Amino acid sequence: MVRVAVDAMGGDFAPEEIVKGAVAAATDNEVEIILVGPIATLEAELAKCDVGQLAIRCVEAGEVIREGEPPAFAIRGKPNASIPVAMKLVKNGQADAIYSAGATGAVVAAAVQILGTLEGVERPAAGGTAGFAPNTIVVDIGGTVDCKPYQLLNFAVMGVVQARKLLGIANPTVALLNVGAEEGKGNELVKATYPLLKKSGLNFIGNVEGYDIPTGRANVIVCDGFVGNVLVKFGENLGKALVDWLEVNLKGHLDEAKLEEITNQLIARTNPADVLGGGPLWGVDGAVIVAHGRSQAVHVSRAIAEAKKAVENQVIESLKSELSRVHRSIEQ
Amino acid sequence: MVRVAVDAMGGDFAPEEIVKGAVAAATDNEVEIILVGPIATLEAELAKCDVGQLAIRCVEAGEVIREGEPPAFAIRGKPNASIPVAMKLVKNGQADAIYSAGATGAVVAAAVQILGTLEGVERPAAGGTAGFAPNTIVVDIGGTVDCKPYQLLNFAVMGVVQARKLLGIANPTVALLNVGAEEGKGNELVKATYPLLKKSGLNFIGNVEGYDIPTGRANVIVCDGFVGNVLVKFGENLGKALVDWLEVNLKGHLDEAKLEEITNQLIARTNPADVLGGGPLWGVDGAVIVAHGRSQAVHVSRAIAEAKKAVENQVIESLKSELSRVHRSIEQ
Repeated sequence: MVRVAVDAMGGDFAPEEIVKGAVAAATDNEVEIILVGPIATLEAELAKCDVGQLAIRCVEAGEVIREGEPPAFAIRGKPNASIPVAMKLVKNGQADAIYSAGATGAVVAAAVQILGTLEGVERPAAGGTAGFAPNTIVVDIGGTVDCKPYQLLNFAVMGVVQARKLLGIANPTVALLNVGAEEGKGNELVKATYPLLKKSGLNFIGNVEGYDIPTGRANVIVCDGFVGNVLVKFGENLGKALVDWLEVNLKGHLDEAKLEEITNQLIARTNPADVLGGGPLWGVDGAVIVAHGRSQAVHVSRAIAEAKKAVENQVIESLKSELSRVHRSIEQ
Repeated sequence: MVRVAVDAMGGDFAPEEIVKGAVAAATDNEVEIILVGPIATLEAELAKCDVGQLAIRCVEAGEVIREGEPPAFAIRGKPNASIPVAMKLVKNGQADAIYSAGATGAVVAAAVQILGTLEGVERPAAGGTAGFAPNTIVVDIGGTVDCKPYQLLNFAVMGVVQARKLLGIANPTVALLNVGAEEGKGNELVKATYPLLKKSGLNFIGNVEGYDIPTGRANVIVCDGFVGNVLVKFGENLGKALVDWLEVNLKGHLDEAKLEEITNQLIARTNPADVLGGGPLWGVDGAVIVAHGRSQAVHVSRAIAEAKKAVENQVIESLKSELSRVHRSIEQ
């Protein structure tokens, strides 16, 4: 059984919703859960749940890292906090993956410090679906705001592994996000990245524009983490603004149940991370699922299922071998 | 009467729709139109319209610059094309503004070469409303893809003038687009821009995130032209994807007329440039309205009305004095 270390103390609704979600994941997904936090607290939460014969155990972590603490400092200063303790379980082979809805900066810092980055990777990155195209992953969506061309190449590889292993797309297309379709367009970063992608051996289809994100023109759309972060947040709230507007303007014109169905579907399409509850952090030597701080039990459970899928589909091994193949391609 | 030089040969539906739209503008807006293009062609088009006693005249321009020609080269190589001829009318004081739906790169190159940039401005920029907030202007949306902090400061000033003079907002708030709200967040560019905006004397409210664009958290949101271009195009097609989805999913559940009303309003809110037909190019010494290539008569007419408004509200004089005030502020 896949073993997931769960940071029970991270997130706006920790520990209650995290523990509930972890129990649900163990119930539905045949996954072994290792809850990390103050054991007395964890046991009190577990006592509220129907745990039966589920594979759930607890590991002590007495300290807590709060939102807003300087990440790298917090990890070094609080080695017994739930994030570093859970991360070390992965490092030491006692867990196969970690789930955390704690402060993202702290999770990333702990992942880098404790698991280390993969060969040829400077900084981790995250990919996520954005804006209405369920088979399109934008990467990076927030890890790295000042990027070099080589990093964008790595993001492409990470996106390909995510599309292949988590979305089940056999030969994902890769595109470079740009201000125009023609080769030679763009800022210095994308102009220097284009030839690397062309030479990468990936299924590179060239530049795409902002227009092409919602239409799903490529499975993997590569951009720096500044652009990706702004885009994803813009798309999420544009979806919400539209839904709010529809609720006002369709009220009385549409059956209430239908209106609710429509708005729920639109939120799911425009805010995919809300539905999934989290996504993989790429580039570190271990399976790390980073979740929204506002995660509730249903999100926790889905994200843990995603962690299980990542482990079963051997995403880290796949990323390592794909990175090494691509790095060889561009050196030739 | 405000005199607008109209590039009658630029755009996918030129000259027919451009001439029709210019006639409509003259009819509705008490504006003098100077059509620029091959006179025989223009007169043939005018013969189809009801021009009566309208203030419309033609100026000969025998050459045409096509979409895809290298802009700066095209302007030098074809001095008798409609874009440079119309631009020279502004330069020589024979027109107060220029409207063109021709190749944007060529219009920008002609504006820079013929009108020149304003003091302290390296390159022109464009601002536009984006994603559901009618009182929010994102600037730059595509002129300058590699920016320096000083340029982002100038974009803020351009946005303020646009918000004040074209949207009628007395004291527009200004924000810096970033990946987080706190000062010190972001890439090198925005980190270096923040203190300039703080010192600018503008109504600067700090950083905003992608989330804050659709909610209209600030009247002017400043970003480099790469980010702005990608954002605006993403928002436009996300709006269209949503409307397409609604048309399928609401069919049969909602009265057809109501469905059409709803989808038209949503397109107008998410694709504001489609409605307005074009926007000002900032940073050159003259009033230039750049329009979509796909502009039809209704868009042409609206954009010419916008040109008239820009001239009457003295946007260029206002931009010059505001730039000079802001540059003095940050030098102190």
